[in-house]
Amino acid sequence: MLDESCCAEVRGLIDKRNWNGVKKMLPTLPAADVAGYLVGLDKNEKILLFRSLPRDFSAEVFAEMEPSNQDLFLKQLSDKETSQLLADLPPDDRASVFQELPAQVTWKLYKLLSPGDLKEVKHILGYPEESVGRLMTPDYIAVRPNWKIKDVLEYIRKKGRDSETTSRIYITDEKGHLFDDIRLRHIIIADPEKDIKELIKGDVTTISAFEDQEKAVHLIKKLNINALPVVDSSNAMVGIVTFDDLMDVEEQEVTEDFQKIAAISTTKEDTYVEKIGEASITLLYRKRILWLVFLVFMNIFSGAAASLFEKTIAKYIVLIFFMPLLIGSGGNAGSQSSTLMIRALATGDVKQNDWLKMLKREFMIAGLLGLTMGVAVSFIGIFRGGPLIAAVVVLAMFLIVIFGSLIGISLPFIFTKLGKDPAMASGPLIQSLCDITGIIIYFSIATVILEIP
Amino acid sequence: MLDESCCAEVRGLIDKRNWNGVKKMLPTLPAADVAGYLVGLDKNEKILLFRSLPRDFSAEVFAEMEPSNQDLFLKQLSDKETSQLLADLPPDDRASVFQELPAQVTWKLYKLLSPGDLKEVKHILGYPEESVGRLMTPDYIAVRPNWKIKDVLEYIRKKGRDSETTSRIYITDEKGHLFDDIRLRHIIIADPEKDIKELIKGDVTTISAFEDQEKAVHLIKKLNINALPVVDSSNAMVGIVTFDDLMDVEEQEVTEDFQKIAAISTTKEDTYVEKIGEASITLLYRKRILWLVFLVFMNIFSGAAASLFEKTIAKYIVLIFFMPLLIGSGGNAGSQSSTLMIRALATGDVKQNDWLKMLKREFMIAGLLGLTMGVAVSFIGIFRGGPLIAAVVVLAMFLIVIFGSLIGISLPFIFTKLGKDPAMASGPLIQSLCDITGIIIYFSIATVILEIP
Repeated sequence: MLDESCCAEVRGLIDKRNWNGVKKMLPTLPAADVAGYLVGLDKNEKILLFRSLPRDFSAEVFAEMEPSNQDLFLKQLSDKETSQLLADLPPDDRASVFQELPAQVTWKLYKLLSPGDLKEVKHILGYPEESVGRLMTPDYIAVRPNWKIKDVLEYIRKKGRDSETTSRIYITDEKGHLFDDIRLRHIIIADPEKDIKELIKGDVTTISAFEDQEKAVHLIKKLNINALPVVDSSNAMVGIVTFDDLMDVEEQEVTEDFQKIAAISTTKEDTYVEKIGEASITLLYRKRILWLVFLVFMNIFSGAAASLFEKTIAKYIVLIFFMPLLIGSGGNAGSQSSTLMIRALATGDVKQNDWLKMLKREFMIAGLLGLTMGVAVSFIGIFRGGPLIAAVVVLAMFLIVIFGSLIGISLPFIFTKLGKDPAMASGPLIQSLCDITGIIIYFSIATVILEIP
Repeated sequence: MLDESCCAEVRGLIDKRNWNGVKKMLPTLPAADVAGYLVGLDKNEKILLFRSLPRDFSAEVFAEMEPSNQDLFLKQLSDKETSQLLADLPPDDRASVFQELPAQVTWKLYKLLSPGDLKEVKHILGYPEESVGRLMTPDYIAVRPNWKIKDVLEYIRKKGRDSETTSRIYITDEKGHLFDDIRLRHIIIADPEKDIKELIKGDVTTISAFEDQEKAVHLIKKLNINALPVVDSSNAMVGIVTFDDLMDVEEQEVTEDFQKIAAISTTKEDTYVEKIGEASITLLYRKRILWLVFLVFMNIFSGAAASLFEKTIAKYIVLIFFMPLLIGSGGNAGSQSSTLMIRALATGDVKQNDWLKMLKREFMIAGLLGLTMGVAVSFIGIFRGGPLIAAVVVLAMFLIVIFGSLIGISLPFIFTKLGKDPAMASGPLIQSLCDITGIIIYFSIATVILEIP
């Protein structure tokens, strides 16, 4: 609690321009008040007084200022001072500095953060999980269009040591708006007296910091470049994502897809098991048991379906011996289709709205597969059950393979439509669905053909 | 057919140093003979005469020379002349030039070939399919250790336009032996008057041209660099592989693994279906039918296994209703294990000789899974079949899940051991194997528990 007399005293010292007195007094006052006094002063005086404050306290004072005043202060401070100030700020205040200041200021500030602080800021800034923003680095070299090429080279010489990559140099204006990226080699082979803007072709491709990391993977592959410039929502450049980080992202995405396809849960906080060799027994147990138990309960329907045909089965016990073969084949054809689609959707080879086209084509492929499988199974049918059983088995095989394939091709699209990962259409899930439909198809045909005459 | 008088005539003209006469005469003689005459001449004269030959004929003559003489000739010719000469050579002769000349000569010649010729030479040179050699490019910049940095920069300015990447510069001796790769930015920020060798750290990693492309993918990911230097069997640098080509390789390998896991054949000349969206119906049919039919014949064993227990089944028809559930669960647990292992072997997370360790751990995980699944299925067992049937089903589930998991974890290792791709341990193959073992386990237990009392 400070009384009014204290405030009056500071005001008095300020009015008398007794800076030494003010210096001594300020650290004893609340940070919010100090912020208020400082903002009212002249440019030179306020920066001198701010610098005189103890380190931790100056950070507190800074945190109390309005964004527009913070901006003015930052412009006066050296890079080293800013870096120190940012390090001293508590994480939430640090993030709000980045959130509230205009992009053209923040994209400079990023570079002054320690790697740990940077990660934290990105997190708090609210770039979504698995977004490009979480992956980008602010360590790139940006130059102005009106710089001479020799000045650009001089600048690279000075800054190049800290930058993640210098194989591309970015030309931006003061607000961070990107004109182009220029390959370092093109700068080296150009006339040093020319302006860098003469190298601008304006064909640069950027990606939003809020975009999914997988999009960046696709883009960098398509463009065959080793770094992509990242822009924020106001289209100002805020960083780059480099090929090595994106290769790691891709490896993770692929491993995740593999696990999903094998019905291994990836819904927990730790989305997937990264290193199988090092994963604990309990983690692997947890990841695997969910789907396995779920599929047990799905498979109850297969049993229930079979029990509907108890009479037919009891009468023609030989039908049992074709059951694993028939429902297995449906599941096999179905997993083939679903896996092809999951991968094609992941690489962008097939798009969500290609469903109908794919479904039509799958119908024809599945018809051919069903015919062949029917022929293959007809010999065993005749050998083990006679012509009538053979007819049942062949017809069932034909229809089960078609149904299985259509389930397999549709499920990844349906999951995508529902906002889920298409890779959830795992082999085991498809197999369970095919078990149920297969049993119904098989015994229905058997009942019709064997019981009616 | 030439008579001796003709040969004598050329010899005579040569002895008289009547070069115009020789020039006129040479194109009328066999290439092998011309090669013989030329090799015997002085350095200047032979190159002058060689240049005077008609283009196609000069290539023929060149092809007839011994490698050591070809080497001498190439040293005399300009890059443009060499490039033209190489283009004029028939593909097999061109390849044998590369095969027989020492590496220090060939690694220069690579750069003088057209992209089409280069691909052909690599093929004929015998770099194995899917080897790094087939993927590498000779377009890189190599400098000598004793060059000054300013000379290196000058050289980059001159050569940089044609090179695939200039973000790294390679320091080699005349024989192509690599001392180090230096990042372009380190060259730019170094003192121009220094020798480039002062930047050598000697920590460069190379890869053999005969190595598998997947090895290069692993290496470039581990090192986080955008190009890897490639060396031949004599350890001379012959090219670089760049991250963009390796990313494409990885995408292909992953797609191939996905297809194998779904039991889609990848053994044909076109190893896998690259673009599902554009693949023809017949191609997809061919790729899918092989395994499907093979699995039908494997599944005959399931039927045969079941028929061994015909009596028990006929007596306890309710057993049938648990069959899809039990064999399905074994297959599901097995596909989880096999897919985890296939991916772990592909990323290098698990090695071939970790099998025993993985098997032991899997045994414990599978035990836990089996217990949980047994509990889950016990309720359905009691509800649908009474306590005795429930006992059979629970015990069968426990053992089937353990067997399935052990099959799943072992098969990828076994395929690797046999020199096959571990991804051949597809979900459907595992499922079929689990069907057979599952049926035997289930009905054996049923026979023992239900029939003996």
